[in-house]
Amino acid sequence: MTDPSAVAEYVRARRADVDAALANLLPSPPECPAPVADAMRYSLTAGGKRLRPVLCLASAEAVGGDRAAVLPAACAIELIHTYSLIHDDLPAMDDDSLRRGLPTLHVVAGEGMAILAGDGLLTEAFHVLSKLPGDPVRVLRAVRLIAEAAGPVGMVGGQAIDLACVTPDPQGRTAPPLDAGGLSTMHAKKTGALIRAAATAGAVLGGGAEPQIAAIDRAAAEFGLAFQIVDDILDVEGDSAQLGKTTGKDAAAGKPTYPALYGLDQSRRMASDCIARARSVLSAANLGDSWLLGIGRWIVERRN
Amino acid sequence: MTDPSAVAEYVRARRADVDAALANLLPSPPECPAPVADAMRYSLTAGGKRLRPVLCLASAEAVGGDRAAVLPAACAIELIHTYSLIHDDLPAMDDDSLRRGLPTLHVVAGEGMAILAGDGLLTEAFHVLSKLPGDPVRVLRAVRLIAEAAGPVGMVGGQAIDLACVTPDPQGRTAPPLDAGGLSTMHAKKTGALIRAAATAGAVLGGGAEPQIAAIDRAAAEFGLAFQIVDDILDVEGDSAQLGKTTGKDAAAGKPTYPALYGLDQSRRMASDCIARARSVLSAANLGDSWLLGIGRWIVERRN
Repeated sequence: MTDPSAVAEYVRARRADVDAALANLLPSPPECPAPVADAMRYSLTAGGKRLRPVLCLASAEAVGGDRAAVLPAACAIELIHTYSLIHDDLPAMDDDSLRRGLPTLHVVAGEGMAILAGDGLLTEAFHVLSKLPGDPVRVLRAVRLIAEAAGPVGMVGGQAIDLACVTPDPQGRTAPPLDAGGLSTMHAKKTGALIRAAATAGAVLGGGAEPQIAAIDRAAAEFGLAFQIVDDILDVEGDSAQLGKTTGKDAAAGKPTYPALYGLDQSRRMASDCIARARSVLSAANLGDSWLLGIGRWIVERRN
Repeated sequence: MTDPSAVAEYVRARRADVDAALANLLPSPPECPAPVADAMRYSLTAGGKRLRPVLCLASAEAVGGDRAAVLPAACAIELIHTYSLIHDDLPAMDDDSLRRGLPTLHVVAGEGMAILAGDGLLTEAFHVLSKLPGDPVRVLRAVRLIAEAAGPVGMVGGQAIDLACVTPDPQGRTAPPLDAGGLSTMHAKKTGALIRAAATAGAVLGGGAEPQIAAIDRAAAEFGLAFQIVDDILDVEGDSAQLGKTTGKDAAAGKPTYPALYGLDQSRRMASDCIARARSVLSAANLGDSWLLGIGRWIVERRN
């Protein structure tokens, strides 16, 4: 289950499951007013790697859980990820006009509607989670993991660190540039936390034993770090057409990146080391022959 | 329990419970980065009537539930209400610079941090709810009620209707002005849904029987409508100093209001009729001697 072409096929199949489920997940008019329904759908169906939901499904499967039962939770995590992209792209934040190869939502629907669509996706994610089938104690634990990861100690907090470093507040103050430790904290919160929660919630909902859940949590933390390092490398090396978003923006904005701090070669080694550590953790918990490690490698080897 | 001064005292006492609990509810540095922690706290502790949490507590008590056990849920609803005010006040939405007598958050902390603080409060609300004590089935039902009420078929949807009527989209299109039916749908979503969910979730978490929960839901729908009618009346009659927010904005923005559609006298009668209907519903469910009806009257008689 680590053969690259088998992994690519597995990822493609799970992504198709997720895309099919997402297509029918959101409320529609007349219950949901058309402008916000359209706006949410625009961003949700604009493509994307679906890394977090695929990881959630693979984790549930790794511990012997039922993938179909976990699918709505996987989709809820993608709703949260999508909301975070919409809000991050706003003029008051990263001010991006291109995402996944399409104009960003605020360009198409206006800033106010983009803010609301993000709010709607975030809230709807918890609505979806609250209706999950299965043991309510496990469901509540998954809600807690996901809310903590997405909230002010997690993703929102990471974005706040990022914003404070780049954008002056109304008093004209900017936070000092991040050092290596600060960069790593920011990324652990901004992208790492939700990637970890996706995997861990999948393991919890799949009925995993505590040592399995703990191993998947640690492996996913490595995947999250590797993902960010590779993201920074692609921002230097990639081109906008392939990535579907503006490249070179981080460096231009004076944001610290892994290649800037460590150089490209060392950054690539750091990403590989993450996967090596994830392998030992997963093997020690007898999860070495799940799809998880292959997904980790796919994260490091991706080109967009 | 309908004597106005006893009701006022009950509301004051519950508001004090809520304010005390809110003071320690949010995460702090170092787990939560300081800029977003400060921003969330600024808006959450800026005062406010605490109507929704008080109604949540009174509903739990009305069905014989333990107020203390429901207090975190009541606070979570206030987090959601506070986030909605922060986002509604943004330049891309209502563009308000005064709220509860203080400069709005985006004026103080910048637009980006205000968006993030709202996102953080919304997400943290679900984190708080996920940790509620008691029967997990009831807790999940409360999460579902609150998420549905706050989301795109509820509050976010109502705000989207409002925005689409007032602010042209990037193509320059504005939705046609609302008629009486449209106005009532917008308010039922924008303010009614969360007021209803506050009461109903309180009844669910308090262990209410289904007929009690249904009666409280219907009464709270009347309270929500009365609240909005009175809000519109105060927007015409009140002054900024007493209300702590800019008055006369709705009329100036060409938004339909109850006084504009029905006149002041008829609007006042409509608010009283809501309370009368709530009284019959509550009495029929043997909830007539709870604090709920008194709170309904307090909503109609308030001056800010």
